[in-house]
Amino acid sequence: MNKNKLKQLWAEGKPTINGWLSIGNAFTAEIMAAQGYDSIGIDLQHGAVDYQTALVMLQAMRASAVVPIVRVPWLEPGIIMKALDAGAYGIICPMINTAGQAAKFVSYLRYPPLGSRSFGPTRANFSAGANYSAEANGEILAFAMVETGEAMDNLDAIARTPGLDGIYVGPADLTFSLAQGRLTPAFDREEPEMIEALQKILTACKSAGIRAALHCGTPEYAAKAAGWGFDMTTVSNDVRMLAGAAETNVKRYRSLIGELSAGTPTQKGGY
Amino acid sequence: MNKNKLKQLWAEGKPTINGWLSIGNAFTAEIMAAQGYDSIGIDLQHGAVDYQTALVMLQAMRASAVVPIVRVPWLEPGIIMKALDAGAYGIICPMINTAGQAAKFVSYLRYPPLGSRSFGPTRANFSAGANYSAEANGEILAFAMVETGEAMDNLDAIARTPGLDGIYVGPADLTFSLAQGRLTPAFDREEPEMIEALQKILTACKSAGIRAALHCGTPEYAAKAAGWGFDMTTVSNDVRMLAGAAETNVKRYRSLIGELSAGTPTQKGGY
Amino acid sequence: MNKNKLKQLWAEGKPTINGWLSIGNAFTAEIMAAQGYDSIGIDLQHGAVDYQTALVMLQAMRASAVVPIVRVPWLEPGIIMKALDAGAYGIICPMINTAGQAAKFVSYLRYPPLGSRSFGPTRANFSAGANYSAEANGEILAFAMVETGEAMDNLDAIARTPGLDGIYVGPADLTFSLAQGRLTPAFDREEPEMIEALQKILTACKSAGIRAALHCGTPEYAAKAAGWGFDMTTVSNDVRMLAGAAETNVKRYRSLIGELSAGTPTQKGGY
Amino acid sequence: MNKNKLKQLWAEGKPTINGWLSIGNAFTAEIMAAQGYDSIGIDLQHGAVDYQTALVMLQAMRASAVVPIVRVPWLEPGIIMKALDAGAYGIICPMINTAGQAAKFVSYLRYPPLGSRSFGPTRANFSAGANYSAEANGEILAFAMVETGEAMDNLDAIARTPGLDGIYVGPADLTFSLAQGRLTPAFDREEPEMIEALQKILTACKSAGIRAALHCGTPEYAAKAAGWGFDMTTVSNDVRMLAGAAETNVKRYRSLIGELSAGTPTQKGGY
Amino acid sequence: MNKNKLKQLWAEGKPTINGWLSIGNAFTAEIMAAQGYDSIGIDLQHGAVDYQTALVMLQAMRASAVVPIVRVPWLEPGIIMKALDAGAYGIICPMINTAGQAAKFVSYLRYPPLGSRSFGPTRANFSAGANYSAEANGEILAFAMVETGEAMDNLDAIARTPGLDGIYVGPADLTFSLAQGRLTPAFDREEPEMIEALQKILTACKSAGIRAALHCGTPEYAAKAAGWGFDMTTVSNDVRMLAGAAETNVKRYRSLIGELSAGTPTQKGGY
Amino acid sequence: MNKNKLKQLWAEGKPTINGWLSIGNAFTAEIMAAQGYDSIGIDLQHGAVDYQTALVMLQAMRASAVVPIVRVPWLEPGIIMKALDAGAYGIICPMINTAGQAAKFVSYLRYPPLGSRSFGPTRANFSAGANYSAEANGEILAFAMVETGEAMDNLDAIARTPGLDGIYVGPADLTFSLAQGRLTPAFDREEPEMIEALQKILTACKSAGIRAALHCGTPEYAAKAAGWGFDMTTVSNDVRMLAGAAETNVKRYRSLIGELSAGTPTQKGGY
Repeated sequence: MNKNKLKQLWAEGKPTINGWLSIGNAFTAEIMAAQGYDSIGIDLQHGAVDYQTALVMLQAMRASAVVPIVRVPWLEPGIIMKALDAGAYGIICPMINTAGQAAKFVSYLRYPPLGSRSFGPTRANFSAGANYSAEANGEILAFAMVETGEAMDNLDAIARTPGLDGIYVGPADLTFSLAQGRLTPAFDREEPEMIEALQKILTACKSAGIRAALHCGTPEYAAKAAGWGFDMTTVSNDVRMLAGAAETNVKRYRSLIGELSAGTPTQKGGY
Repeated sequence: MNKNKLKQLWAEGKPTINGWLSIGNAFTAEIMAAQGYDSIGIDLQHGAVDYQTALVMLQAMRASAVVPIVRVPWLEPGIIMKALDAGAYGIICPMINTAGQAAKFVSYLRYPPLGSRSFGPTRANFSAGANYSAEANGEILAFAMVETGEAMDNLDAIARTPGLDGIYVGPADLTFSLAQGRLTPAFDREEPEMIEALQKILTACKSAGIRAALHCGTPEYAAKAAGWGFDMTTVSNDVRMLAGAAETNVKRYRSLIGELSAGTPTQKGGY
Repeated sequence: MNKNKLKQLWAEGKPTINGWLSIGNAFTAEIMAAQGYDSIGIDLQHGAVDYQTALVMLQAMRASAVVPIVRVPWLEPGIIMKALDAGAYGIICPMINTAGQAAKFVSYLRYPPLGSRSFGPTRANFSAGANYSAEANGEILAFAMVETGEAMDNLDAIARTPGLDGIYVGPADLTFSLAQGRLTPAFDREEPEMIEALQKILTACKSAGIRAALHCGTPEYAAKAAGWGFDMTTVSNDVRMLAGAAETNVKRYRSLIGELSAGTPTQKGGY
Repeated sequence: MNKNKLKQLWAEGKPTINGWLSIGNAFTAEIMAAQGYDSIGIDLQHGAVDYQTALVMLQAMRASAVVPIVRVPWLEPGIIMKALDAGAYGIICPMINTAGQAAKFVSYLRYPPLGSRSFGPTRANFSAGANYSAEANGEILAFAMVETGEAMDNLDAIARTPGLDGIYVGPADLTFSLAQGRLTPAFDREEPEMIEALQKILTACKSAGIRAALHCGTPEYAAKAAGWGFDMTTVSNDVRMLAGAAETNVKRYRSLIGELSAGTPTQKGGY
Repeated sequence: MNKNKLKQLWAEGKPTINGWLSIGNAFTAEIMAAQGYDSIGIDLQHGAVDYQTALVMLQAMRASAVVPIVRVPWLEPGIIMKALDAGAYGIICPMINTAGQAAKFVSYLRYPPLGSRSFGPTRANFSAGANYSAEANGEILAFAMVETGEAMDNLDAIARTPGLDGIYVGPADLTFSLAQGRLTPAFDREEPEMIEALQKILTACKSAGIRAALHCGTPEYAAKAAGWGFDMTTVSNDVRMLAGAAETNVKRYRSLIGELSAGTPTQKGGY
Repeated sequence: MNKNKLKQLWAEGKPTINGWLSIGNAFTAEIMAAQGYDSIGIDLQHGAVDYQTALVMLQAMRASAVVPIVRVPWLEPGIIMKALDAGAYGIICPMINTAGQAAKFVSYLRYPPLGSRSFGPTRANFSAGANYSAEANGEILAFAMVETGEAMDNLDAIARTPGLDGIYVGPADLTFSLAQGRLTPAFDREEPEMIEALQKILTACKSAGIRAALHCGTPEYAAKAAGWGFDMTTVSNDVRMLAGAAETNVKRYRSLIGELSAGTPTQKGGY
């Protein structure tokens, strides 16, 4: 089985950068896989993507050196195992709030005797190389998302779950949950209470000997997080980058020709 | 039938900015349609898109105020009429090299008595408003691409084709053809011979009373072209903007953490 | 965030009419959205549709004024949250039989502090307007389906679930369950026992201050239900309407030309 | 090879009724195939359908006794042969205006020595039964559309094209072309000049020993046309039937509850 | 409702052969349905298929006499009911380890009063014949997979679950679980301990009066299993058969022309 | 730009083996690409595939070392250029009957100054490596199909078309055309007249300095053809291999258990 490059890079002490796919399309996946990320996650939770589309996206990324990761919609065994059989080298599971949930999650993605994953890596047999049944448990990454107050309360127990490889932090949900609505959910938090929470997660991971990952909005924040000790950072996503680049181009053009904006649209929903 | 906003803006003397979709996906279309373009073209020629996908892209753009345009693969009546029935408000046809080809093109997108378009606007009946059969000839734009030496030789005859609304310039092909391989095909030409060609096209359009459009790579070049008198400029496309933004983010991150690059990939096609 | 028109109409004391999509297709969605319904539900439970197709259907309905609703397959958090992130303004959840299930359901579609919905409205950011994170809890409708004897036993407790907006009645399942097989499952019940059950649900809703909705087969029954006090009625669906109209046309034609029927087919499965 | 039921019915002197699919969806095809039509056409010309979707539609109709027909977008050999290889038992080709075009059309769908169709019935091998290469020329129907003034001028020559099975009349285009804009294009013409044209086509077909088919909007008009001698009539289509049934239901409901209409929509393109 | 042919064959004492679809494609389904299997399973668990694709596969198999079965990803009610509404005549549910899970499984696919399946057989109404609501409980097969040590411990209790029709054995997972990693997971076990386990399952099924089914890799092993008394055997799948036939052809060709192999590829991921 | 491995192998005097994809599916493409073929053709002519599906198939093959080829439906510039922009390294064009057609074909796939291909390799930019505009003319293969009597009459002129890389022989059509119906169209001809035709084509290719390719049904015939001097042979296709392997398995099983066949199906089209 092909070795998981993320594990190799982390073993060398290098933080890694992860891309993020929220658009359900094999060509955007192929484009993104050519930009130099160490790994890329397909977001089956909040992304506009489901399994059948994720499959062709995984295929389109295979020719690159990028490690393919899938974030599943929820702690549901069906889709976790389908994503693995489709060739994912890592699973990010949202809303892991207790050690029991973390243990279930690990169980779903490990073969016996470590877990209860069902055997049948139909596409992975083609993409992941030989000896999959014996080596998958050692190559595939299990990331539990810590993103609620309840999860923070159970942080150490979650981090010490046998077989868990890392904690992936969703700052938007974590902010939403910890601040109970006081703060707007978003990435790249600067509030002392949020930075303290991130540091606490980082400490728990280091203490448990697992990896810490953070979803970021900008390369600047990601680099800062890498400096703190985060092993993996995700930087923005396809939707934001496309929308941002297009908006910038349009505004720049309108500014250059002396128009302030597109003006009030004369009609809506007209074509 | 809903009025074509491009015609209204041009009548007010305003140049317009056009977006460009080479990815076959309804969500990228919806994202792009929210960024302030006056119109957006779906590229059935060089884009990774065909009719069935273009249909959902047109549907996804309908709620915006953006005028939907389709570039067809070639001067072939089947796909031109299908794109119109799907709701396109304009067709860009590549490689129009003679007045005869321009006349055929016009004929394919005009109803009798002006042309030979077949009647059956199955989706346009829902998207374009009432009275389509009577008003479509007046609202739908016909753009012939001038992008070869042969077309330059026939420029005035093409521009004077009755029923043609404009000439759309593909600078990459035009460069390829005029320079016969001496210059690399790309947008935003700065060579005097190419600028001269663009000016010649502009003059021919103005003289014939039709619109001139130019495919550009940057807002800066587009604004310059608008200053020359081009009525419509396309600025970049979804593929380049996504790839560019992602590459910038990855490089910025690696620079900030002190890595020069992703290094030599340790494997290829491994997952 | 754009206001939910259903809430506005109900506040004005007006009952609303809901369409129903069981065919997984963006064009049928666009066609149906043009026929004057106040809202339209995409049926991910019994319809021939899953998430990826529902996404383009939601996009195709966006240009209309119709409020988009999704019925999910089951009380499963993954798909409920995916439907919301895709832009649904209401969720109908089948087979809510206890107050505990109703509370879980509400929790899945409300952001903190009201619930545990995860944040990431990837498409809704484009379709629903600004300030989504703060206003979604107030605009999105939660409908629990009461359709079993067990649910009838827990009716008041279900109806009083904090954050629940309404009860949606599935008459086929309710009949199946209450009659334990004595009656054929279908809409538009006329049996006194079934009408009594409907009235009991209506009373429970009014008493709890929430809305009552009923799935109907005909406009006549829907109007009757509106007269009883139901706030929303669904009338038929795309499959039945298409099949019914086609069958009527074929029979009418055969009758007019003097044929009784298509006769015994001379072959089956032959092409 | 399974016998073409249309040929059998016509040989018995029976007119046939044809359904029409403009929605690109396998489930609508399966629904329509259950309603008693003798044959059903998939409209690749004006329908919202292309080849890949038509393929699953053909598969979904196979279990019925309905003869599958395809209308191609234009007189283009690629798509004509693809439709046949996918299992079509008849091709309707739009805009056949001259005998030369009719001869080309026939050539594209007949194997040598009658024509130049390329051999490779990849799916038809599964759907059409044994001995396809020897019998296809005898079972597959070639319908040329006569729908312009030019075609009317060449009517007899077109009708006498060796290998042509029938003429299919598109009344909307024929009206558009003959009236040069004076009349609105639509089905079910009642103008004397149009009825005269239909009769002229019918006479030419009978004289040439081929079949005549007419696209109609209602069973009443179809029955009238059958009375005139048309061998096949198409009655309405999926889009019109679905939209019509839905609109009727909504209006009936609103009328019953005392609402005149949905009122002025309070917003457009809002969700 | 059309009778389930598997039940008829078993009643006649005949073992049946089942095909297996792991590729998500309607044409491969149609091809496989023409090869003489008694039934065919679509694998939503380990196959590269999800619901929307399975739907067109079911449609493409309908014209054959093959009984359509679906293996669901997990014991999750949403997808079980969707597969049934799409026309499946049998459900295979993985990883049933306790009698309680078996009872839940049965409940999800039986209508009241036997279970809690929700009513709405949207496509099955077209494919399965009349009187579905009354007869579905009697025609649809429920297969629980026994494939873990825990399930073996609960074997008799699982087999005696009221309403369960059979046990389907997954030899790969069973081996994985029983041997706790000592043996490589695969089909067609020859180890005495595994044959003993198979015999034990067979005995439990016979004793409980239900059917036993076994997933096999070759017709030879399947015939042996039929000899033991297994009522249904699955033989290989589409992926293995296609890959195997292609590999054999390539090797045979290279051997015939005197090449040992394709040699070391000069590049990877190059096109 | 990555070098075309076929050219390299031929330069070394090695014949190559080509696979063939008639099923429109990215996973079958990925499976086939792992079996050791030198190149694989996607059949847009007779295969059940169109452009949008071919795109994901090309992506799924990219991680292998297989050279991707596309057979287009007809000599139509739109689809030829789309296939190239999608990353094809070779185009096979059916029914090239004259030198004029061959010249047009070459023109469609060569950039200026050699031809008139339009520039915009949207996906090839990602898959084919750097410097595409300058090197594509030298790497991409143009195969004209000779498969009619007319083509045989023009054989030498076709073979000498500047820029043509080879002739690809379709034996089924060639037989159909030459024998005018006397012989059944199929591969692997043994009739002296057909072998003579093949040898004549081979001689013409050698004389013109271009490559000769033959579509075969078995590795045995392919090896024989390689012995004659054919540079490339295609062996069977996905549909035949899958159907053949499945049929063999079913028959072998039925034979082993003592059944002669599946018997007369008790019903057709029943599920």
